[in-house]
Amino acid sequence: MKEKLLKIFEEHQGEFVSGEKISQQLGCSRTAIWKHIDELRKSGYEIESATRKGYRMVSKGDGIKPHEVKSKLKTERIGREQTYFDATESTQIIAHKLAQDGAYEGHVVIANEQTAGKGRLGRKWHSRSGTSISMSIILRPNLPPHQAPQLTLLTAVAVVRAIKQEVGIHCQIKWPNDILINGKKLVGILTEMQAETDRVQSVIIGIGINVNQQANEMAPDIREIATSLAIEKGEGIERARLIAAIFQEFEQLYDLYLESGFSAIRPLWEAEAISVGTYLYARTMHEVIFGYAKGITDEGILLLVDENGKTHHIYSADIEIATQP
Amino acid sequence: MKEKLLKIFEEHQGEFVSGEKISQQLGCSRTAIWKHIDELRKSGYEIESATRKGYRMVSKGDGIKPHEVKSKLKTERIGREQTYFDATESTQIIAHKLAQDGAYEGHVVIANEQTAGKGRLGRKWHSRSGTSISMSIILRPNLPPHQAPQLTLLTAVAVVRAIKQEVGIHCQIKWPNDILINGKKLVGILTEMQAETDRVQSVIIGIGINVNQQANEMAPDIREIATSLAIEKGEGIERARLIAAIFQEFEQLYDLYLESGFSAIRPLWEAEAISVGTYLYARTMHEVIFGYAKGITDEGILLLVDENGKTHHIYSADIEIATQP
Repeated sequence: MKEKLLKIFEEHQGEFVSGEKISQQLGCSRTAIWKHIDELRKSGYEIESATRKGYRMVSKGDGIKPHEVKSKLKTERIGREQTYFDATESTQIIAHKLAQDGAYEGHVVIANEQTAGKGRLGRKWHSRSGTSISMSIILRPNLPPHQAPQLTLLTAVAVVRAIKQEVGIHCQIKWPNDILINGKKLVGILTEMQAETDRVQSVIIGIGINVNQQANEMAPDIREIATSLAIEKGEGIERARLIAAIFQEFEQLYDLYLESGFSAIRPLWEAEAISVGTYLYARTMHEVIFGYAKGITDEGILLLVDENGKTHHIYSADIEIATQP
Repeated sequence: MKEKLLKIFEEHQGEFVSGEKISQQLGCSRTAIWKHIDELRKSGYEIESATRKGYRMVSKGDGIKPHEVKSKLKTERIGREQTYFDATESTQIIAHKLAQDGAYEGHVVIANEQTAGKGRLGRKWHSRSGTSISMSIILRPNLPPHQAPQLTLLTAVAVVRAIKQEVGIHCQIKWPNDILINGKKLVGILTEMQAETDRVQSVIIGIGINVNQQANEMAPDIREIATSLAIEKGEGIERARLIAAIFQEFEQLYDLYLESGFSAIRPLWEAEAISVGTYLYARTMHEVIFGYAKGITDEGILLLVDENGKTHHIYSADIEIATQP
């Protein structure tokens, strides 16, 4: 239905089309048309309506082409160099190749649509055209590899802050790399690196955000565990503006990190984390540990105290917040 | 002189050339000719000599093309897939690309000559045509990144054992990645990885060995700190045989490691290490620490006890063995 409606607007570029005409062509009521128009608007399409004239599409949704992001950019380095794709398999793969060919710190890869997005531990990450943010940031920090997880945590703080500022929604971080609203997944972060054993050559930070997806665009099983900013906010979000805000928050935190280390970032992270000061299940490669999450170390490792009072250092796990101890 | 001599043999392929004739063409004594012939032999050239006939080149030195290495191979996985170059910039760069394109564990890249070899921390590694071993092994271990340094140590043990067996020379390991004979550098190992923050996607182990270089082929300043197997042994070494032996030793140790962890490798490493149970200087990124090296941890980190009895965990450093405490 949405596709048919878009086709009508495309056939009448810049012109008003009456509700009656649309309703005839699509064979549905004018109330139904109004609902579909509303949904398109939430997805980022700008549609004007005027009494006795009908509807007119002003713009096809929010653009994230380099000039649109750059016009909003306030950073020194992050996002100043951009490689943009209307569609690509994975911005991470492109960023890895750029890094090997010598791309500088702050170079970002942005895709309007990602056809084979990568999640953590080889999982998939879905992102449809025009509704998500899919991007990768190339960094060149002088770090040993075991400190790289800190950058995942730093990125989560940057994204939470940018969303709060631009969208007015307060999300929560779930260790290590998810951002949730009301327990539903909104953002995934994937940190990869090319490294020698004692120093990092490049870090590639992938950020995937559900922005303008509507509930009915998600499969029913996904709908229970994932959400989007548009669903939570009740209106469409301009992606370019949010991307620029993320770059700005990121750059500030990254500069602080390079100067003062992770100890300066850790309290900021803990302030936004749902998975600290609570009971949870941690599913590692070998076992499931239940315990009280008392915090993270300066390396970004989760500290979990089990029922016998033993503290476990969790390097990698899937976390499930327990509803009660 | 060596080049002119080789040219004469090339003009008389399969034929004997008298010492007198060579001495006339090159304008030097027959004793000098004999010395040059001897050097060529040490570099791996097979040269027959016969009374009253002179010299005849039987073979141009040791080949390391895939079929020559494979004919000597006794492994299951390591070295079964080979990518060979007469000359390439760096086998590490090639191996990284193969790994990203999905190469399997055990795939190796071998070059007869490396024109821009990589050393640790972005340094250069020199390797001339036909005199060195320059190769990279692709691995896919299921490891967190902080355990990757263990593979450098494992590789060092494999190389020391293969050299002992094939060449009969006992080398020593200098933490983290060098192998020495009498304090002079013979082998460099470079371990790189592509990784997420909590698991390795691929590890690329680069191995560079000075095999058939003669002393006069090294710059004077290099000659004081580096050596080759041919210099130490006094005769040329067949590279393909040594490569096959390294793969075999490596596979055995790697299988043991995957099954039993680094605790099974650590005593083998410590038995071959010069930098344990001795006083040394460790130059890290931030400082120089002098102390007694009491061993390595199960992560492969060097433990250094300073004059105040404080134990330092050394993740990355250049090591200089102290002549006395």
